Amino acid sequence: MEDKSDQKDPGKDTMDRKYWNSHLQKMTGYTFGLQPEITADIVKLNSNESPYPPSPEVLEAIRKAAGPALRLYPRAEWDGLRRALSREYSVPEEAIFCSNGSDEFLSLIFRTFAEPGNTACLTNPTYSLYRVLARAQGIQIMDVDCDADFRINFDELLKRQAKITIITNPNTPTGALEAVKKIEEFVKIRKGLVLVDEAYIDFSENPTANSALRLIEKYDNLLVARTFSKSFSLCGIRAGYAFGCPDLISALLTAKDSYNLDTLAQAAAEAAILDINWMRDNAARVVRTREASRKNFLDLGFGALPSQANFLFVSHPKHDAGKLYNRLLEKNIYIRYFPYSPLDRYLRVSIGSDKDMERFFSALQEILSSEATG
Amino acid sequence: MEDKSDQKDPGKDTMDRKYWNSHLQKMTGYTFGLQPEITADIVKLNSNESPYPPSPEVLEAIRKAAGPALRLYPRAEWDGLRRALSREYSVPEEAIFCSNGSDEFLSLIFRTFAEPGNTACLTNPTYSLYRVLARAQGIQIMDVDCDADFRINFDELLKRQAKITIITNPNTPTGALEAVKKIEEFVKIRKGLVLVDEAYIDFSENPTANSALRLIEKYDNLLVARTFSKSFSLCGIRAGYAFGCPDLISALLTAKDSYNLDTLAQAAAEAAILDINWMRDNAARVVRTREASRKNFLDLGFGALPSQANFLFVSHPKHDAGKLYNRLLEKNIYIRYFPYSPLDRYLRVSIGSDKDMERFFSALQEILSSEATG
Repeated sequence: MEDKSDQKDPGKDTMDRKYWNSHLQKMTGYTFGLQPEITADIVKLNSNESPYPPSPEVLEAIRKAAGPALRLYPRAEWDGLRRALSREYSVPEEAIFCSNGSDEFLSLIFRTFAEPGNTACLTNPTYSLYRVLARAQGIQIMDVDCDADFRINFDELLKRQAKITIITNPNTPTGALEAVKKIEEFVKIRKGLVLVDEAYIDFSENPTANSALRLIEKYDNLLVARTFSKSFSLCGIRAGYAFGCPDLISALLTAKDSYNLDTLAQAAAEAAILDINWMRDNAARVVRTREASRKNFLDLGFGALPSQANFLFVSHPKHDAGKLYNRLLEKNIYIRYFPYSPLDRYLRVSIGSDKDMERFFSALQEILSSEATG
Repeated sequence: MEDKSDQKDPGKDTMDRKYWNSHLQKMTGYTFGLQPEITADIVKLNSNESPYPPSPEVLEAIRKAAGPALRLYPRAEWDGLRRALSREYSVPEEAIFCSNGSDEFLSLIFRTFAEPGNTACLTNPTYSLYRVLARAQGIQIMDVDCDADFRINFDELLKRQAKITIITNPNTPTGALEAVKKIEEFVKIRKGLVLVDEAYIDFSENPTANSALRLIEKYDNLLVARTFSKSFSLCGIRAGYAFGCPDLISALLTAKDSYNLDTLAQAAAEAAILDINWMRDNAARVVRTREASRKNFLDLGFGALPSQANFLFVSHPKHDAGKLYNRLLEKNIYIRYFPYSPLDRYLRVSIGSDKDMERFFSALQEILSSEATG
């Protein structure tokens, strides 16, 4: 999996790991994007964060919640937030789960619906955190390679048996979107749980039509996950939400920490749903910038997959991706590079503001020219 | 375990639990205290929450953090908060872990230092969440009864082998404090990890002297857990912290979700540490009220263990605890009753403000008189 060289703890190798469990002894944690302090000099396009601020209603809700009532525990089952989600997405409350970021939900599915020795089926490539979380629970991974154009190979997936299969839609780091019809065919036949992770769906052409959400009423083996991090501009509050039949949600409620989502995050997320048009406007802006950026990449001779997410996955036939990554880093421009095959020929660039992208492309052009003449 | 009758989901029994893992199929989740809406009528003494608000500095820090930067991920390793904890407690940063409430930390220790089939040793009684979290991971529980006066029986604990042993100090629901010397003797001999959960230590006579914190430099099998929930009046933000040798902390870092503590909680917790005297003053007020309340209980004919925590554990020789609990509930006074032996003879009453306790005792007196004459 991902290289940890850029953040390796030099003391780590001297540790004896005597008390670590057998799964953890053999693994390293997830590699998150570098977290530079944000100054005017920095362009941070490495973690698929939104360039736009969260809704003013959200900030106001947090300020209002910052009062004496913080002495009390949060609502254990997120009453207000769950009600708002229920209304917005027309899903009964008992089919909704809320988590401390999608991360907690993803960790929970391996702890709730699988046990050590079970198998999880993942597409390759996909979000690398799944693998880390599964391995931490002693769960075997079965990778199914995507097609040459990074489409998910559902036929191959069906040939493998697994307790849990994860489909990321749109996928990361590619931005490729699969038709919901294909997903339904898969869920229908599949024995075992299917999670469709829709972290980026709000950046797709028609989120409602593209989502697997409506399928949860028909299939008892389907979970659909969303997050407030990306389209709602709320990475900082750690709030995720998910949909599934009440039997699945009830299992997650049994397994979760009692008060998994704090009072401030619940207030913020509820306000974000009540002001959902703020999110939609921002997502639309990101989409416009994404399409303009894709054109810029193509003009510069890059290959750039069509993307339905808030990032682009690009490669240049004549320039080494790792080198470009490092040259950009020298110029305080942070993007993402995955130093393992087959992703090491590509760069993942989150879509920033138009100004961020201008700075990015001007730096990139400079680097390409200097390499061409150098 | 705790009865779930007061919050049972009537639909639950119709569920087939087909996709639940084998551990969860056999268990119910943790029973948290009832969460009534707080109105002027309500006296809530059932979850060991502080009656006092968090520091104004904390609220100000949250308001300041409620800005555009919430679009970005939180600091993955809690830089500011960790630095503040390091200075306050004179512990190197790499010996400090921060979590989404102590709950996440407690869940993590079973996932990090044990695997299904291993054994965890708990005292009986103790915080019932440990058992739920361990069972969810397929870990066997070995209970060691406390003495008749609810002191921990270290000799008996030593006779049992276990991957993880948890000592809650002061213990819950009793409030009993064990001498740190006894804990050191135990940790020294014990093969296997020991967690000392000091959630309530700030309410003890001398938190610094009573804490096992200084032992982490000497023993590589010791973790000491604390929380912002109780003494810092911050149940609502979900922040816990823990100390241990860097090898243990490094394991937890590998196992945790990347961004487990949100930006607002990190800012709030850091401000709480920087204004630690606010916490100390509130803890001192709670202690004064606790001692006065204990005297009131004794005057009313209750047995009331000396407590070093922010609650009292009481029983009356002539009045049924369950009945008293229900009569108080009718009067909108919420305390805690554990409906299983041997705890079912007792009531746990969190220490509220002086006004809360006045209302509590006046209602209690009324009930006792009516039962005596009735």
